Amino acid sequence: MQADRDTAALVAATTAFVRREVIPVDDEHDGDIEAAGGEALRRRLQEGARAEGLLSPHGPVDCGGLGLGMAARAPVFEAAGRSLFGPVALNINAPDEGNVHLLDHVASGAQRARYLAPLVSGQARSAFAMTEPAPGAGADPTMLTTAAAKVDGGWLINGRKLFITGADGASFYIIMARTSGEPGEPGGATMFLAPSRAAGIDVVRHIDTVDRSMLGGHCEMLFTDVFVADEDVLGGVDEGFRYAQVRLGPARMTHVMRWLGAASRAHEVAVRYAAERPAFGGRLADLGMMQQMIADNEIDLAATRALLMEACRELDAGGRASESTSIAKTFAAEALHRVVDRATQMCGGLGVSRELPVARIAREIRPFRIYDGPSEVHRWSIARRAVRRLADTAAS
Amino acid sequence: MQADRDTAALVAATTAFVRREVIPVDDEHDGDIEAAGGEALRRRLQEGARAEGLLSPHGPVDCGGLGLGMAARAPVFEAAGRSLFGPVALNINAPDEGNVHLLDHVASGAQRARYLAPLVSGQARSAFAMTEPAPGAGADPTMLTTAAAKVDGGWLINGRKLFITGADGASFYIIMARTSGEPGEPGGATMFLAPSRAAGIDVVRHIDTVDRSMLGGHCEMLFTDVFVADEDVLGGVDEGFRYAQVRLGPARMTHVMRWLGAASRAHEVAVRYAAERPAFGGRLADLGMMQQMIADNEIDLAATRALLMEACRELDAGGRASESTSIAKTFAAEALHRVVDRATQMCGGLGVSRELPVARIAREIRPFRIYDGPSEVHRWSIARRAVRRLADTAAS
Amino acid sequence: MQADRDTAALVAATTAFVRREVIPVDDEHDGDIEAAGGEALRRRLQEGARAEGLLSPHGPVDCGGLGLGMAARAPVFEAAGRSLFGPVALNINAPDEGNVHLLDHVASGAQRARYLAPLVSGQARSAFAMTEPAPGAGADPTMLTTAAAKVDGGWLINGRKLFITGADGASFYIIMARTSGEPGEPGGATMFLAPSRAAGIDVVRHIDTVDRSMLGGHCEMLFTDVFVADEDVLGGVDEGFRYAQVRLGPARMTHVMRWLGAASRAHEVAVRYAAERPAFGGRLADLGMMQQMIADNEIDLAATRALLMEACRELDAGGRASESTSIAKTFAAEALHRVVDRATQMCGGLGVSRELPVARIAREIRPFRIYDGPSEVHRWSIARRAVRRLADTAAS
Amino acid sequence: MQADRDTAALVAATTAFVRREVIPVDDEHDGDIEAAGGEALRRRLQEGARAEGLLSPHGPVDCGGLGLGMAARAPVFEAAGRSLFGPVALNINAPDEGNVHLLDHVASGAQRARYLAPLVSGQARSAFAMTEPAPGAGADPTMLTTAAAKVDGGWLINGRKLFITGADGASFYIIMARTSGEPGEPGGATMFLAPSRAAGIDVVRHIDTVDRSMLGGHCEMLFTDVFVADEDVLGGVDEGFRYAQVRLGPARMTHVMRWLGAASRAHEVAVRYAAERPAFGGRLADLGMMQQMIADNEIDLAATRALLMEACRELDAGGRASESTSIAKTFAAEALHRVVDRATQMCGGLGVSRELPVARIAREIRPFRIYDGPSEVHRWSIARRAVRRLADTAAS
Repeated sequence: MQADRDTAALVAATTAFVRREVIPVDDEHDGDIEAAGGEALRRRLQEGARAEGLLSPHGPVDCGGLGLGMAARAPVFEAAGRSLFGPVALNINAPDEGNVHLLDHVASGAQRARYLAPLVSGQARSAFAMTEPAPGAGADPTMLTTAAAKVDGGWLINGRKLFITGADGASFYIIMARTSGEPGEPGGATMFLAPSRAAGIDVVRHIDTVDRSMLGGHCEMLFTDVFVADEDVLGGVDEGFRYAQVRLGPARMTHVMRWLGAASRAHEVAVRYAAERPAFGGRLADLGMMQQMIADNEIDLAATRALLMEACRELDAGGRASESTSIAKTFAAEALHRVVDRATQMCGGLGVSRELPVARIAREIRPFRIYDGPSEVHRWSIARRAVRRLADTAAS
Repeated sequence: MQADRDTAALVAATTAFVRREVIPVDDEHDGDIEAAGGEALRRRLQEGARAEGLLSPHGPVDCGGLGLGMAARAPVFEAAGRSLFGPVALNINAPDEGNVHLLDHVASGAQRARYLAPLVSGQARSAFAMTEPAPGAGADPTMLTTAAAKVDGGWLINGRKLFITGADGASFYIIMARTSGEPGEPGGATMFLAPSRAAGIDVVRHIDTVDRSMLGGHCEMLFTDVFVADEDVLGGVDEGFRYAQVRLGPARMTHVMRWLGAASRAHEVAVRYAAERPAFGGRLADLGMMQQMIADNEIDLAATRALLMEACRELDAGGRASESTSIAKTFAAEALHRVVDRATQMCGGLGVSRELPVARIAREIRPFRIYDGPSEVHRWSIARRAVRRLADTAAS
Repeated sequence: MQADRDTAALVAATTAFVRREVIPVDDEHDGDIEAAGGEALRRRLQEGARAEGLLSPHGPVDCGGLGLGMAARAPVFEAAGRSLFGPVALNINAPDEGNVHLLDHVASGAQRARYLAPLVSGQARSAFAMTEPAPGAGADPTMLTTAAAKVDGGWLINGRKLFITGADGASFYIIMARTSGEPGEPGGATMFLAPSRAAGIDVVRHIDTVDRSMLGGHCEMLFTDVFVADEDVLGGVDEGFRYAQVRLGPARMTHVMRWLGAASRAHEVAVRYAAERPAFGGRLADLGMMQQMIADNEIDLAATRALLMEACRELDAGGRASESTSIAKTFAAEALHRVVDRATQMCGGLGVSRELPVARIAREIRPFRIYDGPSEVHRWSIARRAVRRLADTAAS
Repeated sequence: MQADRDTAALVAATTAFVRREVIPVDDEHDGDIEAAGGEALRRRLQEGARAEGLLSPHGPVDCGGLGLGMAARAPVFEAAGRSLFGPVALNINAPDEGNVHLLDHVASGAQRARYLAPLVSGQARSAFAMTEPAPGAGADPTMLTTAAAKVDGGWLINGRKLFITGADGASFYIIMARTSGEPGEPGGATMFLAPSRAAGIDVVRHIDTVDRSMLGGHCEMLFTDVFVADEDVLGGVDEGFRYAQVRLGPARMTHVMRWLGAASRAHEVAVRYAAERPAFGGRLADLGMMQQMIADNEIDLAATRALLMEACRELDAGGRASESTSIAKTFAAEALHRVVDRATQMCGGLGVSRELPVARIAREIRPFRIYDGPSEVHRWSIARRAVRRLADTAAS
């Protein structure tokens, strides 16, 4: 029923909720989620969203979510993304949101009850422990070095993970570990579910990155003889890389949706600033160089949305959409960064101050060109696909 | 029936026809349509397309066209656009293609028989006589100075037109002339239909532009006491600007479709070149800077297609799509130019020679950033719309 | 004697001093000068520089400076700029450094002793109170609204100033105030010297900008019936705009010098990172897309230096260099921003963390495209000059 | 004596001569040197330049040249480059100009008389036969495959050369051939002088490139058992790569000088066009987006000049300037292309027509990003140098 709710109405309700309940907190604390209350803030904001029927729009209906597909998520997530705290408020922040998607596709019935349901309801937070310090799994996931050894009734996991978003304070982890083969080989990874209170799990430190809006930070983790029972293996043994692909495409696109919201807000703030500020007998917004920045922002936003929707439709139709999500993510990361940079420039001195949200959005969006695959790594894979595709076909 | 023909099959047939029948002529004559035979070439190529059921995919079915909507046209026109002569071969070149669209929407029954039918069948060519020398109608159409004065049974038209594509050799013209109001005022334009043999119509000269693939060139025209009977007024008197809008959005998008084909071919030629050429112990296509150009081309092509399809869907749904076609046209003109420029660079010395089609496509596509509204004029109007839209709404 | 000291030796000594004494503090406190000690840090670092004969390389010799001209300053200031605190350490930070230059050219003997000497020796800090809230003096200085009224024995100043760098904690201010004419008229401004303890001077608040390395912040100031005696008028009455030009060109160029140092450091850190990090069987620095970023950084740095030196030579030869300093500033602001952005991208996740200085330099350098005239305002004035120059001459 | 002639006067005289005698021919024939008269035109224009004392400003004084150093050449060559035929008129076109430089440094007395003197006087034209079809000498000169075998009294040369500029109609060739070692090895090349009438030399064909202003075209050549006597070995055996370096840096910079002239002219034509054309109640040149293009052109031109002069001073001081000339060439090729592209855009429809020289300059300057090393190859070498330089030094 909730899932049938009209998307436009959901977008409007989300926009209003974010404006009324979320943006004031975001503005007051300059987008620093820990300073704004951290876990307590999350619970309070999610309570508000729950009361308005806005919580977990992506969650499966049987777990209490709204069950939206990718195309319907896009405008809702964008509306939430207008505040840096909006995704947390709606329970659609990374990495939880991608983990919901993954568990919905792969989890067993018992896992669904134990891990997925509390995630959708907002009781739990989670993290996805895949990337490792060099020379482990990074841009090249097959370099995975964290290993799980079979023992009686389960597995013992050992290894070190880096840049694990949301790790601090998470209730459980999805841990990617090698169960066969060697680093550099394409196969042999398995996903494991482990509560954070399990023995041997350490959140070693926060990597002190420039962004401040991600609850639980970006952490280094150490796994020392962590025991995971057989029933907490997520899906099949040695199927980890395949499941990672299941998570990958949609997770890329929901990142784009959220950042579209933030970049749109920066743009709109800048346009309103320029429309109100007198300059040379008219308004700043009437000057040609301003118009060029405004138009280029509109174009970049429209192109980002168009690529996003193409990929979402492909995902909704059951495709893996590796190529279209890679293209959309790369374009979006570069384009939205340009949008926010132009917005900064349009606001002059206030664009680099806390008096407008633009500087804060610039600070938070910069890493998007690096996180989830730097633009260069995506370009490398896009080019290789293109060469393969074209070199095989006859010229015309 | 033809209109129901499966689009994918039509694309495949078009691609094969263009490769077999059109590209060899294009290659032999370096895209110079006059050198390749001009009007005689047009008739020969269109005969081939007609024989394969590919002619006039956009034309209304009652006139013998295939009746495709905008979204279906996109991949067909792109396939045709792979050769600079492909649009002429399929009878979908500018300005005829836009004139078909306009006449289909506005022409009376008699006009439909006399002007539209021969256009769709390929018997006739036409031109759209709107733009004028400064300070007349250019980027700002309301500056229209060519005037039509009411006389008994019709109108007398006087004025000068500039950059009239396809004028030389056209069978008839659609002439935009002022029937009320003054230059600079928004109203008062009317469209007139006039056969090229009408007294007082002169094609004064060709403007010697760098592009060589447009049949009939870009001309200066002089209208001296040209009499147009009342029955050859196209639609209502003083409704000309409104009809120009009807033509505008789709015409922008079909330009994008055709140039997408040309730019895609340049990109593919370059990728194949790079994939075949040895460099530093591997292939040129494996070098990182090549991969960056290849990937950026793939991204620019995908974003152009995505924006194009968004606008086509809006047009097919009955919208005017002024904003989305303006955004798509501007992005496409800039992006496709970048694509061809990168393709040039990827091919090295051969990229600036006639030995590959890339240099020729670069020569032909450059004006697209200027024709049909320079990117700067589009940006100006996109920005004004954005300021109007945002300045009226509350901040959030 | 000091002034004759070989520039190369001075650069080497500065580089060594900054590396040994300044960078560790900068690194420890992430470039936040208040957190690092503020005024106390300044005194401590300057004591070190003084001990090594490095203090005030730009100051006039009779006041204890090294008396370097603009061309000689360039590599010394760049060496200092490698640390965000380096300019403070050498007493060449903005706005003091520009104020030294201005006072050296305009101050009376008494003013030289009272204001210039303590500035050169590091005893005093100063600020330059010119820019005002809209619609006052900003990009267009002739909009000056702060007014000075003649009274017996001096002047009474009233007005509000915005974005006054270094205001908090300064010992004295150079205040620009209108003494004749109306806002929007080109003439009628005068410069006044006033100690910060003078009655009626208030530092109202800090504008909370993203940069953290400027001692004394960017402040809003209020001047209420501030009395300045006739002998503290700086230069002639109504000559303020002319003196502002004296300060302007060199101040633009010393900004470029300092930011060149910071951007160079970011680039070098990134290249070393890429040279040490294994990737795909080689080093990250050997991948083509990395090489492209490295090369583009080298090119941008070289072009910035070349434009800077052209302008410095022009200034040293006695020219005002309005055009060449405007061009050099605009190019530098855009180019150095690109350099630091590429450095960020090259360092991946660490590029947006505190573990390397790159993110911090990115944060500090962003406002340079806005401070001292946004790039758009410079472009506007560069274009107007070009049109004036070319429209007057015959074509060829 | 001539060499002492004041540079400014020489620039003024060159500018006037080019405007009066050269540009009209260039304009009439759209920069197509063969259509304009080819060799006959060259002789006629050079006669004019000789009469005014402007011929061969770079030539050694003892051969009748003006003996200018690199820094003095820059503005003179730029003035000549304003017309596409200007370099031919002054006898400073590629490749003759670089060959003069090379012969001046390496030729024996007899070679000086036989080859250099007629080149400086304009009696002879020459070509530099180095680059070969893949996989021979191209971006990587060590791949040289054309071989010279020692025979009694001289050498027998066999091989194929590609993209040999000016080959058709040249009086003699400087041929680079392998005299020891294998392709891919760094050593073993020798330069040989051979009159074009020597047996076994064939100009096989012209590569049909887009540019039309280079006398003698870009040719494929075949050398079949070409005998070169020992006295026509240029410099020492196996010293060819070293001499190529002597030629390389200055030749890069004179290319930049000439293209600076062409791009400046395009810019000036566009600014004048914009300054004369009414738009929206003012002039086109007063619109912000136009101002942005004008300013960015001014900045690109200034930065190109600044980098050029840095490198020239280094060359004049006796340095090889490999790095600074590579940086200046790469920046210039990209920047001047941008300048001409913006000029095209500023002129609208006329910018892509023959009615202004802009389209023609765009056509001729495009290959500069590829000839003399594509920008990508230069970036590759710039990056490698930077990594080598930085990886060896301690961080700071």
